[in-house]
Amino acid sequence: MLQPRSDEYFMQQALKEARIAFDEGEVPIGAVVVTNGKIIARGHNEVEKLNDPTAHAEMIALTSAFSHIGAKYLPDATLYVTVEPCLMCAGALYWSKITRIVWGADDEKNGHKRIAKEENPFHQKAEVTQGVLKEECAQLMKDFFKQMR
Amino acid sequence: MLQPRSDEYFMQQALKEARIAFDEGEVPIGAVVVTNGKIIARGHNEVEKLNDPTAHAEMIALTSAFSHIGAKYLPDATLYVTVEPCLMCAGALYWSKITRIVWGADDEKNGHKRIAKEENPFHQKAEVTQGVLKEECAQLMKDFFKQMR
Repeated sequence: MLQPRSDEYFMQQALKEARIAFDEGEVPIGAVVVTNGKIIARGHNEVEKLNDPTAHAEMIALTSAFSHIGAKYLPDATLYVTVEPCLMCAGALYWSKITRIVWGADDEKNGHKRIAKEENPFHQKAEVTQGVLKEECAQLMKDFFKQMR
Repeated sequence: MLQPRSDEYFMQQALKEARIAFDEGEVPIGAVVVTNGKIIARGHNEVEKLNDPTAHAEMIALTSAFSHIGAKYLPDATLYVTVEPCLMCAGALYWSKITRIVWGADDEKNGHKRIAKEENPFHQKAEVTQGVLKEECAQLMKDFFKQMR
């Protein structure tokens, strides 16, 4: 019998998306949406490509997930993202009614934790896991901003 | 010489968008983006139509505005929206670097004011005006939720 896949496995998949963003000159953040142990949507930052500062990995993965399941809520899904969601993405995750959110590296500057009053601005039943593969997720960001200077 | 158009004028245009949403069975919220006294983008709630809870009037109007000007920031623009932006839309407005945000009715339940720590989670230079045509904006919401019951 197949073992259920680990958080690390799915975060590696989100990192794969983040590396695509990196290679395209985008801030390297990636996300995947998982239901029943399967990836149903992927996304990476496309702010530069689309000339749209709202084109974050999470927004793209969520919209793709809604489209995939043909419904406007994700009650039995997990979003994996390499970096802590910003305020906008935290709001989008709230609206999605997603039940679990897993991120890698914290974002001291633009992460929602710095700005939202409640520790958990997501849907009230949402479970949050932080720090999965956080070194790899953070290192990719550091490498990107180092080469930008 | 043409008089510059008033906030009320542009909020009426946002209300026009909200009424389109109403007629389509969507929560009746509308928005317009204005630069140099001209409307460059419009949007209304399309959550039901697109099966996407992130398809808020502001998100649609912003993405349309970025596309119109071919840039990822709106440094000399005003967004008019009939109802106080939610956390997601407040975050999107932050990223847009928009300089002015005008809304009609407050949203006690989902408005960003209830959730964000800072009174103004937008770009630090953004100016905020609240309450323009607030009765009309609120009434449209009341009418919608009354007919839903």
